Amino acid sequence: MDGNKVLEKAKVEIVNAFNEFERHLSSNTFIASERITAADVSLYSVCGAIVNLSILKLTHFPSIHRWYMTIDNNPRVIDVAKYVNSAIPDKFKRIRYVMKELLAEHKTALGKEVTVQGWVRTSRSAEKGQILFVELNDGSTVKSIQLVLNTQTIGFESICNSGGVGASLTAIGTVVASPAKGQNIEIHVKEAILLGAVYGGDNGEISGKNYPMSKKAHSLEYLREIAHLRIRSKFFSSAMRVRNAMAYATHKFFYERKFVYVHTPLITGADCEGAGEQFAVTTLLPDHAKLTDIPKDTKGNVDFSKDFFGRRTCLTVSGQLNVETHACALSDVYTFGPTFRAEESHTSRHLAEFWMIEPEICFANLSDDMALAEDYVRFCTKYALENCADDLAYFEDEYPNGEKGLRSRLSNVVENEFARITYTEAVALLQKEIALGNALFERYPNWGDDLGSEHERYITEKIYKKPTIVINYPRGIKAFYMKLNDDNITVAAMDILVPKIGELIGGSQREDRLDVLEARCVESGMKPSDIWWYADLRRYGTVPHAGFGLGFERLIMFITGLENIRDVIPFPRVPKNAEF
Amino acid sequence: MDGNKVLEKAKVEIVNAFNEFERHLSSNTFIASERITAADVSLYSVCGAIVNLSILKLTHFPSIHRWYMTIDNNPRVIDVAKYVNSAIPDKFKRIRYVMKELLAEHKTALGKEVTVQGWVRTSRSAEKGQILFVELNDGSTVKSIQLVLNTQTIGFESICNSGGVGASLTAIGTVVASPAKGQNIEIHVKEAILLGAVYGGDNGEISGKNYPMSKKAHSLEYLREIAHLRIRSKFFSSAMRVRNAMAYATHKFFYERKFVYVHTPLITGADCEGAGEQFAVTTLLPDHAKLTDIPKDTKGNVDFSKDFFGRRTCLTVSGQLNVETHACALSDVYTFGPTFRAEESHTSRHLAEFWMIEPEICFANLSDDMALAEDYVRFCTKYALENCADDLAYFEDEYPNGEKGLRSRLSNVVENEFARITYTEAVALLQKEIALGNALFERYPNWGDDLGSEHERYITEKIYKKPTIVINYPRGIKAFYMKLNDDNITVAAMDILVPKIGELIGGSQREDRLDVLEARCVESGMKPSDIWWYADLRRYGTVPHAGFGLGFERLIMFITGLENIRDVIPFPRVPKNAEF
Repeated sequence: MDGNKVLEKAKVEIVNAFNEFERHLSSNTFIASERITAADVSLYSVCGAIVNLSILKLTHFPSIHRWYMTIDNNPRVIDVAKYVNSAIPDKFKRIRYVMKELLAEHKTALGKEVTVQGWVRTSRSAEKGQILFVELNDGSTVKSIQLVLNTQTIGFESICNSGGVGASLTAIGTVVASPAKGQNIEIHVKEAILLGAVYGGDNGEISGKNYPMSKKAHSLEYLREIAHLRIRSKFFSSAMRVRNAMAYATHKFFYERKFVYVHTPLITGADCEGAGEQFAVTTLLPDHAKLTDIPKDTKGNVDFSKDFFGRRTCLTVSGQLNVETHACALSDVYTFGPTFRAEESHTSRHLAEFWMIEPEICFANLSDDMALAEDYVRFCTKYALENCADDLAYFEDEYPNGEKGLRSRLSNVVENEFARITYTEAVALLQKEIALGNALFERYPNWGDDLGSEHERYITEKIYKKPTIVINYPRGIKAFYMKLNDDNITVAAMDILVPKIGELIGGSQREDRLDVLEARCVESGMKPSDIWWYADLRRYGTVPHAGFGLGFERLIMFITGLENIRDVIPFPRVPKNAEF
Repeated sequence: MDGNKVLEKAKVEIVNAFNEFERHLSSNTFIASERITAADVSLYSVCGAIVNLSILKLTHFPSIHRWYMTIDNNPRVIDVAKYVNSAIPDKFKRIRYVMKELLAEHKTALGKEVTVQGWVRTSRSAEKGQILFVELNDGSTVKSIQLVLNTQTIGFESICNSGGVGASLTAIGTVVASPAKGQNIEIHVKEAILLGAVYGGDNGEISGKNYPMSKKAHSLEYLREIAHLRIRSKFFSSAMRVRNAMAYATHKFFYERKFVYVHTPLITGADCEGAGEQFAVTTLLPDHAKLTDIPKDTKGNVDFSKDFFGRRTCLTVSGQLNVETHACALSDVYTFGPTFRAEESHTSRHLAEFWMIEPEICFANLSDDMALAEDYVRFCTKYALENCADDLAYFEDEYPNGEKGLRSRLSNVVENEFARITYTEAVALLQKEIALGNALFERYPNWGDDLGSEHERYITEKIYKKPTIVINYPRGIKAFYMKLNDDNITVAAMDILVPKIGELIGGSQREDRLDVLEARCVESGMKPSDIWWYADLRRYGTVPHAGFGLGFERLIMFITGLENIRDVIPFPRVPKNAEF
């Protein structure tokens, strides 16, 4: 075949490739991110070579052309990009194969000699003790890898006498296709090194007898009492990997959209929202504190001026007021940190210590706020489906009390826009459902009352069957900082209700008018002087702004389908329990 | 030119391009990340087309070949990748141009009509009030954009009477090349909309008179008293943008290396490290608490069994012991959260509330720990140089007390491996320097004493002139959980010392032997029963593991060259101050 024919044949393929590439660049500034990366530099060179073949014109591909010229006009950009992407070689290298990666590469790994390390999930001997099958797990995935040891394996005896479940070891061996179902590969172990036996015998000797995490299933209640070990179960390690992915997705979402992450303070002297009971933070109550040593004032009250901060301080219940100060200079910001409520709630939905995400956007109204919140929830949901597939499969298919239809519920969230309805419409709708005999509630939904959990779930689960945003609540049931609507009876607030959870997000446009803010403050039983610094934001260059708050644990429950908030945080803090 | 000649010409260029691409893939699994992205799919198609031209063999490019076959063997991967990368279109869209982006695109933006929004940094009228020059800033960058308004501008009067500095506005106008030096573009404003004036008059009328943030420079001490407004300055907004970038870099670094982020608890009943004074968390001291209302036991001590958690609880001083429980199941984990010390320190290096990063790695020793810490510090430093260029330039070139040579100090960190030395060698070195008359210290460095800040800085700044890792400290000065070395007199601890800061990181291999751990615990004046759950990690499947801790604010000081820790956190908490 001469050059002309080769060219003709390749031409079609190249044009196809360019069409594909054009589609990609039509919605992306650069190939892999919002800034130039080594991928752009590589492909820029390739494109240049192809253009020189004269088989196509760049101008026929407007997005590629725009992208190509951007790089071409800035020769220095290319140098910078090379520098930017020349990562420093990592010094930290694992000798072990991360199991998640090994399982992903199972086809190419066949026949390789590998090292794996982890903890025994199950252990079973066969052929009169001549063979030992060990399921080893390293926490990188819910899946384990089967090790096959026999009497030829160096260290065979030590593994046989390790106490079994929970023991830790290093295994060096060959990856082979597994005849067992449910697993692609197993490792035929040449050498095993016992790292840590299980000393669970009655006298502290090696034995699995008293090891609290045997392989039989435990109740979640029992596992909460051994929170230092429960993470070794499939259930909790899956929950924590999902939590990790959602935390990363959160930062990724906001960072890529140019939000600034602000660490608002945990200890605060301000006490103006009145959202629930607060914990006091003090140095006045040391260990074995004697009542007589506590400083008091002339009225017999505790003298907080002697406390560490010279005043009474509490743990924050929300970073919102603080973060607004930074929004009013940086435009778009968010918090992600712990918040606290000293409420005597013993429900499956409340913790004394939990993590909150609170974005705040300037030059924005309630509509922008809803758009941002919807983007965020759908982004996280999609991220979980794509990056936590194994863990979601565990919760849906393997965990006995898991939610059937979990992943299809999540896909539904990704694929559909959220429903939107006003509070007033929602109340009318609920009342109509009652009148029609379709619904029965413990409490009748009167206009002016807050929606109960039963109402919220009915709206999102029965009426819309997808996430639903309810807006414009009565002023009387919402916080003073929410913007008063022109009707003077509602505020520009929004709650996002989702199936399975009910309220996932609460947000609002903020009252940006100084006089209205101060009047609403008084209406709520506070003094304008209590919020002097918050009011300053309206006094000096006020801007329309909005934001929302989301309990991170609620998000994890929403994503995993788990029903008790104590199971989606490493060490739950609830009344009468701060163990570990 | 016929096809053959075209092909010959293109061939050289294509091979060059492939060589470049080969280099990239030799250190990256896929083009843009550790998993397949749309970039891979695009380039895969292009590569396929080129291979079909028969001008080169893929097997001559081993990394490209490996990459190509990985995709080629998994046709479903391509579908998945398309799905993965088909982002949900954002509903949240800003009508304003983010200033950082507009400045970056200044060449292509010329002549465009744009909307910008922000706060007035400076305002100056010219030509007898016929023209108004406004520097507007939206917090996305330290740089402002100059607006030019004249009597033809809609809204001209309102901007002239807005109170000036600090006022917020929307401006719609045309981007033009700026004749002024130091800026590429300015905006000729067609319409300006005043959003918020500055009500700084004596009677609350519009005026800049009493606005606390006038354009003249303020002392940092003064600005700390108005922490709700100080973020409007170049200094603090730059510091907070760097902080944001470093938080993101931290998560990116660990997430991409398959670490799981663990939210260790803030409120803790455990009190076993004894690292500094702790704050108590309580509901026994409500607002206006009367001493007589505080429950007491028969000895006249405060009865903490009546407290919220049924026991005395404190704010954590470190998440390390908690996170080790998760490491011993997930292998590689990290924390990033607030920690607290109730120390009466009034220095520029201490806060009562600060953020810590604490990774913990299993199947790892001190050497792995050092490697990880060095990778992390260099990664963050490089990330700052690349992503915070404007803010670092501000601190070095514009801020009057900024560090001269800041960026070259940081480049030095990126480009050089850290020095390594044992504690014993370090002490000998310091003693020798004294003997030679090269150094004079307030305290003589005796073997067995902890190194002082003066010693640490001498080692890293004078001797090595780069970050330096000191290892193997005397057992007597380090915590009980650090692994005892075989010499029985030192522990496998490491401190990373950096120029400008001194100690940036402290870490160690952990004692993984149950008997040694309990003996060291007793040696430190504690009871083994105090650490029963921590000891369980050694009782059941112990593994060699290691970790380190790093104060996030120290990192920000290191990166920015700023000298007071109170200036690198949004709301500093120090003795007698928890305002806002």
